[in-house]
Order: sequence, then structure tokens, then C-alpha cells
Amino acid sequence: MTRIARRMADIQPFHVMEILKRAHQLSAAGRDIIHLEVGEPDFPTPQPMVDAARRFLEGGHVHYTPALGLTDLREAISRFYHDRFGTDIAPERIIVTPGASGGLMLALGVLTDPGDEWLLPDPGYPSNRHLVRSFEGRPVALPVDATTRFQPTPAHLAQAWTPRTRGLMVASPANPTGTLLELDEIEALQQAVSARGGVLIVDEIYQGLCYGVEARTALSRLDDVFVVNSFSKYFGMTGWRLGWMVVPEAYVRDIEKLAQHFFISPSTPAQHAALAAFEPATLEILETRRHAFAERRNALLPALREIGFRFATEPQGAFYLYADVSDLADSSETLAQRLIEEAGVATTPGLDFGNNAPEKHLRIAYTTDEGRLVEAAERIARVLKHL
Amino acid sequence: MTRIARRMADIQPFHVMEILKRAHQLSAAGRDIIHLEVGEPDFPTPQPMVDAARRFLEGGHVHYTPALGLTDLREAISRFYHDRFGTDIAPERIIVTPGASGGLMLALGVLTDPGDEWLLPDPGYPSNRHLVRSFEGRPVALPVDATTRFQPTPAHLAQAWTPRTRGLMVASPANPTGTLLELDEIEALQQAVSARGGVLIVDEIYQGLCYGVEARTALSRLDDVFVVNSFSKYFGMTGWRLGWMVVPEAYVRDIEKLAQHFFISPSTPAQHAALAAFEPATLEILETRRHAFAERRNALLPALREIGFRFATEPQGAFYLYADVSDLADSSETLAQRLIEEAGVATTPGLDFGNNAPEKHLRIAYTTDEGRLVEAAERIARVLKHL
Repeated sequence: MTRIARRMADIQPFHVMEILKRAHQLSAAGRDIIHLEVGEPDFPTPQPMVDAARRFLEGGHVHYTPALGLTDLREAISRFYHDRFGTDIAPERIIVTPGASGGLMLALGVLTDPGDEWLLPDPGYPSNRHLVRSFEGRPVALPVDATTRFQPTPAHLAQAWTPRTRGLMVASPANPTGTLLELDEIEALQQAVSARGGVLIVDEIYQGLCYGVEARTALSRLDDVFVVNSFSKYFGMTGWRLGWMVVPEAYVRDIEKLAQHFFISPSTPAQHAALAAFEPATLEILETRRHAFAERRNALLPALREIGFRFATEPQGAFYLYADVSDLADSSETLAQRLIEEAGVATTPGLDFGNNAPEKHLRIAYTTDEGRLVEAAERIARVLKHL
Repeated sequence: MTRIARRMADIQPFHVMEILKRAHQLSAAGRDIIHLEVGEPDFPTPQPMVDAARRFLEGGHVHYTPALGLTDLREAISRFYHDRFGTDIAPERIIVTPGASGGLMLALGVLTDPGDEWLLPDPGYPSNRHLVRSFEGRPVALPVDATTRFQPTPAHLAQAWTPRTRGLMVASPANPTGTLLELDEIEALQQAVSARGGVLIVDEIYQGLCYGVEARTALSRLDDVFVVNSFSKYFGMTGWRLGWMVVPEAYVRDIEKLAQHFFISPSTPAQHAALAAFEPATLEILETRRHAFAERRNALLPALREIGFRFATEPQGAFYLYADVSDLADSSETLAQRLIEEAGVATTPGLDFGNNAPEKHLRIAYTTDEGRLVEAAERIARVLKHL
């Protein structure tokens, strides 16, 4: 009797879960495993945010909020854009969502008709193409490489655009590559998309996490764009499941309808924690952490280069290194298996990020402390010297 | 440039939001408003659950959990089925979700191909048809009335089934009618659905909230069924956004894939609160509340009958009364407007629950204390005597 919808044949699991499962088995057997596969900060949620949530919870009055989020929080996010980026965004255009995933679902749900094509850079965050497919859209991969810092250009766009194309999704900083788009580049992409009657979605989920360059937002140049953001990464709130999205005004009412049915409302305790996200005490903690991430990156990158991992472009954001490992192994999957078995180091093979030479690439997350990162590099070096 | 997906033309907002907006305006102007429109318990989250969450939050380590939820919580839910209903459900079949909404999305996402028809009782919970539409399915209303306690029967099914029908959704206790299905009735529906190669989804979101009858689960009779449940209503956790779903084993893997992309994982603080949901101290609080709901219902039902609200079938569950108001007004919408303006009492007109004689029906939620309910009935009586 089992009959599964056709879309599920195209929807892949996170392949890294197999590595994670093996890591847990090895840990349970007493092996020391260093986790470089995990896409979440190792830091706890900043204390002022935890305190705000705990205070709110005291009375137990944890009721639904409006579907688009607490007015206070939408206003706080609006002030954040003003204070940090000098950009004025009306709170009415800010949608609080259950994680950035929730924002992506709402955006794709109101934008995608069956058969509509979305251009997605490959490599890229795997869920994007599966969410497009979930709403009966067609994800179309834009293969990108180090020559354009793994970011799409108007030339890529011109080549791939068809009458069925609905729009383009980009990420800055990007997962898995850690590269950023310049504002001029985003603007050029938006012009190219808009000239063809399409929509640009910009994933700024890793916004605050950049090193040696300033954080930026597409919104300081563009209004007619969907911007997805998150409290998970820079703000250290992964498990709370909270994000936000800024949308053109004309879409707000439809997004509200969809949010009511998809989610009723975002998590109330998470929203109260997030109200403390923009306080000076919190931002100070977050900046300290950003510096720690920068130091980790600066320690790990040369150590891996030394071993033979290649980085044709310098990653400047998020907490990922996307290494070309083709000098070290025929297949990144085999290499990842070898690293977990022999070095006790868990990494994510390229397969999770698309079909653009995944066998050549490995994602390494620096979401563990510097000492462990150095140890991981040493262990990897020892194993690979026996190649 | 605005181009909104076609599905949005079929997706309605919660109409009650207009009443709620007006209620807030009147409150702000100093009027005392009694809220009988709200679909959430007025009680706070039980203290043992709040305490569990606050303890968990102390360290701030709020990370992602597995996509299907914490193993401990899935096991606790499994024990709950055993202890309360004498039913053995493998924890592996239990999916922890971001609210019951999340469960419905996963179920419909893995089951619905474009054009697939789902039979939905009308009146019914409005989001169901919009979620079906979101995945390009076609919601098909089964008009039901007091003669079958607003529940569908195999005869309804036989009449509406087509080669494109994918399955049937039922709710017990049901929103907005508060009626339950007997286990024999659910079994007969499942046989009728299954004989036609379809799937039955049973919404047990209001499971623990029934009065004068025992709580029940379709799972005590059936394995080959999707059962959606929630921590929101009986367990008093609305704003936390947590629910669960029990699915046939053959669907677990696909649901896990979809859950990874839709949600990453359910809220971690909510899951830790829910771990305390089945403790004796919590269940004692919840049973006390259930008795309070029963008393409210017993006070409100005769008071409304006295005024001329008609209830052809006795509601036994949830916290709703679905009244036939056709003796009192030509349109339930006009009546609801009159009640908010003249009596300061907010209710939900039938329009939100479908197209089956909505103008004749009003939903009244007894989610406020008994004294206020009595006062609401008195105020309504005063207004309607001037008809």
C-alpha cells in the first residue's frame, strides 16, 4: 500500500549523517573523534539571550505570537539594520521565521509555480534544491568554481536563463565555500535577474561571520529582493530555530497567509531570547567569538595547505573551508571515510553540496576550538603521509 | 514585477484575525473584551515542563537535535502510548515535529503528488486544505453535518472517492465541532480508505481533552495510519511549537529526509520541556485543567442554548462549541461583528472552517475562565434581546 510522492525520489538526505553515525559509533567504542563536519557553532547561546528567555519562561505564559513574529522583535531587527548597516527597513517587511529554513519555505512557496526553474549555484546549501522541488519547482544547478570565488555572475545567468526561470538564489557568505559577494556584484546580479522578470533571493544566514572584510547586506543597495537571515549562526541560536526574512512589501500579505498555515507562529521562547540579540552586551560576546573564528581559520588554513589541501580562493566568511582534495585522493567520499576511520576526524564530502565535482571537494568546519583544529591537522597529516 | 505563485489565490488567511484586530482596537480604546475566539488554552505551560526547560537552558547549550527529535523524547512518547492507551508503538515510528502543523506538512509532503485529491470534512481545521494545496494537491470537501456528528462515514467516502483520491483526513476530537469518532468508526473509515488504496490521516491534536468519554487513539486499532498529535493543546505548550506524528514504518526514511530540509530539527528547548510532559506531577495538573474545561463547557452550553444557539450534537472534546446560529442572524459573520461591537465578545464565524453553511455557524472557544464565560453569555443575551 505504500505509495510515496514522486518528489521524494529527487530529495536526498544529508549524506554527512552517515559520517556522523560512524563518528558516534567510534566515540561509543572509546575513540576520540574531532568533529569538523558540524554546521553549527560550538559556542553556547550568549548569556544575555539565555537570561531573557529564562525570565520570559518564569510565568509559563508561552502563547502563540502573531504569525509574522512579535512586533517588538521585528522593530529590533529593523533597528539592527539601521545601526549596523545604515539601512532603513520598515518592520512590516521583516518576517520572523522558524529558522532560515522556514523563511526559505515561505519565499519559495509564494514564488514557485509547478515547473518554475530556480538557478542555484553548485556547490551550495543542499536544502535549497530540495525545497524548490518540494513546491514542484525545478532546481537548475549553476556550476561555479574558484575562478569566480564559487559565486555566480551575470554571465552564468545569461547562459542558464530560460522562459521558465523564476529566479536566482545566492548566498553571501556562502555554505560550503565561505566566499562573499561584493555589493556591486549582488547589484549586477539583481539587475540581470530583474531585466528578465525574475526574483533574486539572497541568503545572508552567515552575515555577521566574516573575517578581514566588513559584514554587508544586499538591502543596503536593493529593495526588490528577498533576504533570508538567521539567529542560528552569528547569534549562536541553532537549536532554538529562529530566523528572519526581509521581503518586498508586495509579498508580505501572501507570506503572512502561508506562515499562518505552515507554522501558526515562530517559537515564542526563541523570540524572547532574540529580543536580547542586539543588546551591546550580546554583540560584544558575538564579536569576541567572531575573532575566535578568525583565529581558528587563520590556524587551520595554512596547516591544511601544508598537507596538500588546495584552496584556490580565500574563504572569508561563515565557518567553512571548501578544500580541493584531488591531489590527495580519487574521491572525497573515500577520503572522508579514511579520515574518520584512521584519523578520527569527521569531515563532509562534497556530495552534500551538489554535482559539480563533489568527488574533488571536502568541507571542513572550524566549529571546534583551535587546539583541536591543530590536532586534527596533525592527525590528518600523519594518516596521509602513509598514502 | 510582483508575480505570486498561483497556489496563493486558493490559500485564505485566518478570517478570525479581522475579529481579533477589531478586539485589540476596542481593548486599546478601553473596552473590556471577552475572548471566545482563541484556539489555545488560557492556562500557562505546566510548571514541571517550564522548570525542565529552564534547567536545560541554564548552560546555554542549545544545539540542533536529530531531525526526527531527541531519542529520549521519542521513547517517552512511546511509553505514553503504552501507559495511557495500552498500545505499543516503536519509538522509531514516532516523529517529533515543530507543532502539529509541521507533522501535517511532512505527511502531506511525502504523500501528495500534484493533482492528488484529499478528502477533508467540512467544517474542519482550515489549514488542512491550504497545506494540501501548498503541495499542489487538491482539497476536496466532504460536507458533514450534525446527523453524523460532523464526522465523515464510509458512505461519504464512497460518494466522493475518485481515481485521483489519495486519502482522507479526519480529526477526533475535531476542530471546530468538538466531536469524537468511536474506534469502530475510525476502523471502518480506515477499511474503506485502504480498500481503495488510499491513506488515512487522523488528527488527534486535542486527544487528551475530552469530557464524559475516555481519550482514545486510532493507534490502538490501526498500524497503517498517520496520526498527528501536538503538545500545544492538552499539554499547554502552544507557543513552544512542538508536536509529534506516528507513521507507518515504510514512510519513516522519507519523512526524515523532508524533515531535514524543512526544519533541520524541532525546537530543542521545547523538546526538553516536553520530556517532563508525561511525569505524574504534570499529568495531575493537566487532568485538573481538563476538569476545569469540562466545567466551563457544562456552564456555557446550556447558557448559550437558552439564548437560542443550537447544538444538534453534543460536543465532547477539544474546547470548542460549534453553534448553529441561524435562528439568531442571517449571517454568522454579521452576528460575530455585532457581538464584538455591542457585547465585547469575540467569536469565530464559520467562514474559517469551510464552505458548508458557514453563514449558519459560529465557533465559541471556552479558553477563558468560567466567570468570564458566564458573563459573556449574559452580555450576548442582552444584545440579542434587542434583535
